Amino acid sequence: MTDKVFNVAILGASGYTGAELVRIIATHPNLRIRALSADRKAGQTMAQVFPHLRHLDLPPLVAVGDIDLAAVDLVFCALPHGLSQALVRELPAQVKVVDLGADFRLRDPDEYAKWYGAPHAAVELQGEAVYGLTEFYRDDIRRARLVAGTGCNAATVQFALRPLIAAGVIDLDRIICDLKNGISGAGRSLKENMLFAERSQDVAGYSQGGRHRHLGEFDQEFSALAGRAVRIQFTPHLVPVNRGILASCYVEGDAAAIHATLADAYRDEPFIHILPMGEAPQMAHVQGSNFCHIGVVGDRIAGRALVVATLDNLNKGSSGQAVQNANLMLGLPETTGLMLAPVFP
Amino acid sequence: MTDKVFNVAILGASGYTGAELVRIIATHPNLRIRALSADRKAGQTMAQVFPHLRHLDLPPLVAVGDIDLAAVDLVFCALPHGLSQALVRELPAQVKVVDLGADFRLRDPDEYAKWYGAPHAAVELQGEAVYGLTEFYRDDIRRARLVAGTGCNAATVQFALRPLIAAGVIDLDRIICDLKNGISGAGRSLKENMLFAERSQDVAGYSQGGRHRHLGEFDQEFSALAGRAVRIQFTPHLVPVNRGILASCYVEGDAAAIHATLADAYRDEPFIHILPMGEAPQMAHVQGSNFCHIGVVGDRIAGRALVVATLDNLNKGSSGQAVQNANLMLGLPETTGLMLAPVFP
Amino acid sequence: MTDKVFNVAILGASGYTGAELVRIIATHPNLRIRALSADRKAGQTMAQVFPHLRHLDLPPLVAVGDIDLAAVDLVFCALPHGLSQALVRELPAQVKVVDLGADFRLRDPDEYAKWYGAPHAAVELQGEAVYGLTEFYRDDIRRARLVAGTGCNAATVQFALRPLIAAGVIDLDRIICDLKNGISGAGRSLKENMLFAERSQDVAGYSQGGRHRHLGEFDQEFSALAGRAVRIQFTPHLVPVNRGILASCYVEGDAAAIHATLADAYRDEPFIHILPMGEAPQMAHVQGSNFCHIGVVGDRIAGRALVVATLDNLNKGSSGQAVQNANLMLGLPETTGLMLAPVFP
Amino acid sequence: MTDKVFNVAILGASGYTGAELVRIIATHPNLRIRALSADRKAGQTMAQVFPHLRHLDLPPLVAVGDIDLAAVDLVFCALPHGLSQALVRELPAQVKVVDLGADFRLRDPDEYAKWYGAPHAAVELQGEAVYGLTEFYRDDIRRARLVAGTGCNAATVQFALRPLIAAGVIDLDRIICDLKNGISGAGRSLKENMLFAERSQDVAGYSQGGRHRHLGEFDQEFSALAGRAVRIQFTPHLVPVNRGILASCYVEGDAAAIHATLADAYRDEPFIHILPMGEAPQMAHVQGSNFCHIGVVGDRIAGRALVVATLDNLNKGSSGQAVQNANLMLGLPETTGLMLAPVFP
Repeated sequence: MTDKVFNVAILGASGYTGAELVRIIATHPNLRIRALSADRKAGQTMAQVFPHLRHLDLPPLVAVGDIDLAAVDLVFCALPHGLSQALVRELPAQVKVVDLGADFRLRDPDEYAKWYGAPHAAVELQGEAVYGLTEFYRDDIRRARLVAGTGCNAATVQFALRPLIAAGVIDLDRIICDLKNGISGAGRSLKENMLFAERSQDVAGYSQGGRHRHLGEFDQEFSALAGRAVRIQFTPHLVPVNRGILASCYVEGDAAAIHATLADAYRDEPFIHILPMGEAPQMAHVQGSNFCHIGVVGDRIAGRALVVATLDNLNKGSSGQAVQNANLMLGLPETTGLMLAPVFP
Repeated sequence: MTDKVFNVAILGASGYTGAELVRIIATHPNLRIRALSADRKAGQTMAQVFPHLRHLDLPPLVAVGDIDLAAVDLVFCALPHGLSQALVRELPAQVKVVDLGADFRLRDPDEYAKWYGAPHAAVELQGEAVYGLTEFYRDDIRRARLVAGTGCNAATVQFALRPLIAAGVIDLDRIICDLKNGISGAGRSLKENMLFAERSQDVAGYSQGGRHRHLGEFDQEFSALAGRAVRIQFTPHLVPVNRGILASCYVEGDAAAIHATLADAYRDEPFIHILPMGEAPQMAHVQGSNFCHIGVVGDRIAGRALVVATLDNLNKGSSGQAVQNANLMLGLPETTGLMLAPVFP
Repeated sequence: MTDKVFNVAILGASGYTGAELVRIIATHPNLRIRALSADRKAGQTMAQVFPHLRHLDLPPLVAVGDIDLAAVDLVFCALPHGLSQALVRELPAQVKVVDLGADFRLRDPDEYAKWYGAPHAAVELQGEAVYGLTEFYRDDIRRARLVAGTGCNAATVQFALRPLIAAGVIDLDRIICDLKNGISGAGRSLKENMLFAERSQDVAGYSQGGRHRHLGEFDQEFSALAGRAVRIQFTPHLVPVNRGILASCYVEGDAAAIHATLADAYRDEPFIHILPMGEAPQMAHVQGSNFCHIGVVGDRIAGRALVVATLDNLNKGSSGQAVQNANLMLGLPETTGLMLAPVFP
Repeated sequence: MTDKVFNVAILGASGYTGAELVRIIATHPNLRIRALSADRKAGQTMAQVFPHLRHLDLPPLVAVGDIDLAAVDLVFCALPHGLSQALVRELPAQVKVVDLGADFRLRDPDEYAKWYGAPHAAVELQGEAVYGLTEFYRDDIRRARLVAGTGCNAATVQFALRPLIAAGVIDLDRIICDLKNGISGAGRSLKENMLFAERSQDVAGYSQGGRHRHLGEFDQEFSALAGRAVRIQFTPHLVPVNRGILASCYVEGDAAAIHATLADAYRDEPFIHILPMGEAPQMAHVQGSNFCHIGVVGDRIAGRALVVATLDNLNKGSSGQAVQNANLMLGLPETTGLMLAPVFP
């Protein structure tokens, strides 16, 4: 274990992924938080914005422009979608960047414009950015200056399906992913339908019918893997849980071959666990951690299978993934600071 | 509105469906509760077992054998699966029966034995029993002495799919139903995985892969409707909600035709509401009521659609349906006592 | 039962108490909703704002100024605090008013100004308004044109304590009330700390130390009852429950005398239930109803007792109380439309 | 930081405190789990009983008698109350013991018999055991062979009140503690009132009126501190939260003096945080951690104050405390492995 310490800054520290970054880094032996920004809450302390972090000795929240980046090795951008583009362009060249937002996930400017409703403001960086699904882009991430964190839904489903698409063991035209999503995925922004009284005791789908932006990532990644256009059906549902995504992926293929393919693909992965054949994972067993549990269950209808993957959207789906990528970019062992066990119950 | 009062008994009143029957009947103008049975809790009052009903003047809980059935017009059997069979055979011939359990849902004794693991103990009654999905078996129910309440999952999915199967507007070999189920569906029995600390903050599938018993009902009903064998994929998931089932049904067919078929089928139904095209219902909007909300959303992939149905498992999925059927069997208007509005938030 | 139908309007129908009024009136035999107002959501239908009410045939939401009050017998004002004052003054003299807000609860203009931070805008009406705690102001309410609904916390604690203060069986200088409050009490307004992810899994006090506005009601009512100034300690806590208030009131006095006093006071009350000595009520047993359950438990320390009261803040604490008062004002039996049983689980 | 590794065994590893011990030790640099026992689940793996721990390389669950204690430095007993007494007597003399149960908390055998309903089976050990409230028994714990973990409620309230009682700044005869308790405190045992459907949306007091066993600890500790008999009022309430205790302690004394006393007492404590005067802590801000947050709010009634303390019952209230004590007993820095940040949201 190295003793080397790297200085990091978190831009957008007043959101949930910002807080989760701080929580993870609190026990990370090689990262030191040098600066925290939050434009609307500049001037406050992190203990005021997130009292669960009051035991930590943290820098105050400042406006992003007030950060001295000379002393920073790596920046985590946990900003709302659309705000990273211009900002990243202004950063000094020696500063590495892990962007947790959506700005650099799609390589094709047209695809970006289609899903996000506006042209990209930093097209030249779009090409440079490496897609941050660590388990599949490790080597590129090690060499990258700018890594684009994946969507949390996009990560969950890709963990379930990438090896299957690559191996050709499922029908590419018959993939249906039904997701159950914890509420923290909506962030801390104020919407009537995110109030406790509206969400407690409710289940509701959203962005149904192929309108969710993470479909852009699926289209890009799965098509590249398959060497042809792949379009999946994808429906997220809000469930009254703070953290977690559970993806029920209905596929066509041989369940045993599917299970074997996944078990083989993830045999040496520290964070991805394949359950015994016939068992499906539960959301509560990964919360608070960087782990992803995946299970495969065959159906009574021959040739059909259910692949279920679950992870913590704030951790493995966002901030944990970000630290995993930062570890690689900084030359640290990939699991450093990330072996925190899930919290249950 | 008639002033006539019918005497009813509830067998198995100490479970959740028993309590829900009492709650509904409390403001039903034509039903009077004459007897309540609960073998293990015989001797207790309903206010002891369910303090939320303490304002009602109810008979005490007795053993089922201690009920005087001479004074009873109709019996609701809310017993655990398997206990109704012998019991119903012993009831006086003039007593009508609404069974909320699974004992009489399957007409074929072999199918019963296959799904429930034991031969049926009252095969002669199995044939007599009418399947209790009111909206589709109304005339038979009016004439029936014995009505078999449907499974709660079975009701939800059938409301979404029956008109589509009957009309031939969806591909019968490509039906996938992903359900999100409130916890009260598991009843009041003691299981470790039903403890609050295990279910709060969790989502978990169960009986995946075609092992859930309600598949017997789907096989029976959908095959009869289609005139050929129909087998669907069906996966329920526990979500941390007290009441409610939300079924996301992935089908192949034209979304507009699907919506039109459902709108047409349910145009005059007081309890089934079809949302405007492109809108999907939420579980919280039917809780505590006998209503079922259904929505249809097309997909970006042509020829695919999502049909979402939601209802309250204890009410429309069980006790509300039972009262709806009892109303018909007793010659009362079908909606009597059932227009209670959902409770939100 | 009378067949007479009264026309009512609900001002502020897009909030939770507005929705609860509609839910109750939906099965009330003598009230008909003639108009619904919601300034910000004018132009929408109630089904859009509250889809759980979509089965009802309701007038559209309009701006308050667009309501034709000539056809209205009684108005329910479910407006944010401060908005009723000027509005009520403009209403035609023959229209009765039940105000669910705080504007007319305090009779003393100085007290109003002290607790609400601004002078009262309709002082002349303040004197006319009757305090709407039905069980204690019945006769005045029958004759009133303007009834001021109580605070939901204020109702809960008063049900527990009024008979005890009136009878002199507790020490007036040693009353401590610790409340656990469901989240719907905060209404539908957008605040970061009301988001699901912030409230789920949390308990937090608020307005501690004697700063909560409902203290103005306690001061007014308890002092009048006692004939001397009474000041209680009162601390509400948010708990992750949609509906319900449970007040744990720590008092000094003889537990048996306290229980006997309460049992005697509420013997003939249809909505207030005193549990057997030594039993305390649970919040889940009154949700969705107009009932209040109260229990008394003695302490191992002689002369100390715990009085626990629970009710549904949206129903008995607000909209149910409002309908109960409206029934009296319109000459209807007090319980009309209000015997809906609690919904459990 | 030492590299020395100590071998530990966990007896009763299939309960929630057992799982929390494993979670904490998973990232503790100096403890290695050598054995896990669970009589009823002997033969299973920890991954079967607690799938959230599946990433860890753990010994299988065995019967307690099958553990080889020769290789063990310290045993954590996480057994149901009453089972540790005989067992601890049989342990080899060189094995240190941290008992998480209630068996050794009370030093007086009569008090034990009174609160636990049976005579103590290892009276000679009762005298030897050190009460495990680390912050107040540090030196004794360092030298102890047997440490008795405190009750989780007992810890919470003592953190709030011990310095105040010791300093004489509050009235000893007027202490009322109203607790809000997460459900995991009830453990994994099967009770109808612990089912999700019963607890979700409910708040309910229990063991009211001075019947809760943790009162034995308060009587012992507070009386010893004060040098006279002290009896407090103490009422716990179940709230629908997985983890956490929030104690609202109503005391008489000067709020400023109370705050100053607490701030002074805990100035150098790594795990106890006193909030600024007038602020009260929230349960959600300590979950998953070994921290305790305490706040003081004065009342509008002079001489009254509210002291609110909150901690995670499974962590600081039980397993975190146990590891903190083990650290001391093994000569390790007290905070080793315990600086995990709370998980929010």
